[in-house]
Amino acid sequence: MKKISESTVKRLSQYYRILTDQIEKGRETISSHKIAEINQVTAAQVRKDLSFFGSFGKRGLGYNTVALRKKIGDILGLNRTWNVALVGYGNIGRALLKYDEFRKQGFLFQVVFEADENKTGRTDGGVEIVHTKDAPSIVASKEIEIVIIAVPAREAQKVIDYFIDLGVRAFLNFATTSIHVPEGVVVKNENMSIELEALSYFLTNE
Amino acid sequence: MKKISESTVKRLSQYYRILTDQIEKGRETISSHKIAEINQVTAAQVRKDLSFFGSFGKRGLGYNTVALRKKIGDILGLNRTWNVALVGYGNIGRALLKYDEFRKQGFLFQVVFEADENKTGRTDGGVEIVHTKDAPSIVASKEIEIVIIAVPAREAQKVIDYFIDLGVRAFLNFATTSIHVPEGVVVKNENMSIELEALSYFLTNE
Repeated sequence: MKKISESTVKRLSQYYRILTDQIEKGRETISSHKIAEINQVTAAQVRKDLSFFGSFGKRGLGYNTVALRKKIGDILGLNRTWNVALVGYGNIGRALLKYDEFRKQGFLFQVVFEADENKTGRTDGGVEIVHTKDAPSIVASKEIEIVIIAVPAREAQKVIDYFIDLGVRAFLNFATTSIHVPEGVVVKNENMSIELEALSYFLTNE
Repeated sequence: MKKISESTVKRLSQYYRILTDQIEKGRETISSHKIAEINQVTAAQVRKDLSFFGSFGKRGLGYNTVALRKKIGDILGLNRTWNVALVGYGNIGRALLKYDEFRKQGFLFQVVFEADENKTGRTDGGVEIVHTKDAPSIVASKEIEIVIIAVPAREAQKVIDYFIDLGVRAFLNFATTSIHVPEGVVVKNENMSIELEALSYFLTNE
């Protein structure tokens, strides 16, 4: 399959969410116009994004919601579960552990790593909190595929390097600092201030 | 000023963050190449983004970090503070309240609104938790400009409509549901699963 752009992947995520919602509401078909309207893009964009993966829709009938969701799920790797580790059991880490959406999407917290010994040796919501130094054996035994970084900014690069050495190739980083990783490793940064700054821009310039 | 695209605004946010970081490190100038490298875009993109707002850089000398940061801050409306209300004092809401980055960027929590009476009538980190029904007077008296939505998905649209009626025009929505708002109102959605899905795509297709 051709490599698709980051922004297309994001839109596919959004379409997937809309389809899930429509299926829950009992809708069997959906038009590109409806997807576009909910998603605030053009119908042409929706058709272009979807045509990239073959022909799903029927002119005049729209897309079959279940079939399209299944197909997008296959592309995004969502029709399966992923083993996730969280690093950092602070305020953000604790909230993420309780963020039900991750589990619903198949991202399963298998373990929490924490460097403060006072916080380790217990469980939270059934997930064990263990010392970061024990990661080498646990990353292997629990087959951790994605690591979520919720440590202070000054620690983030060091922690990510440590987990790269353990074979982890995919990170979601909540620390607001720029991270350098080698080829073949991906870091997605979740910076919640960025959306607030977009609102600030809107309020300033409107 | 010309209206700039959403993706340019996001990149400006990132440049702003890089400049803050460089200033803290004592750097007086920075090249477009350096900004580009940290930000994983091309130097041409950086120059294009910045030239949009006039001429900042000097060939061979790079940009003055303090002047450029000030200019981007003016564009994004970051050289001032914003009055923010949080709605929903659950897991996500509590973590956001403790998320120091918001305050550092000038987004100040002035109040928390919560519909559950058992959670109201106290403070958290100096911020009062009050019942949502008291919002009409408080939004006005505290001059709330941005509302952060951390309520269950099924409540989100209703809550946003309520605050639009109170004159709020900018929302950051953590509920994973699609929201409809009239012209002149902006909702930015913070869906933390989307970045995880991008990782899932990477691991599936690499």
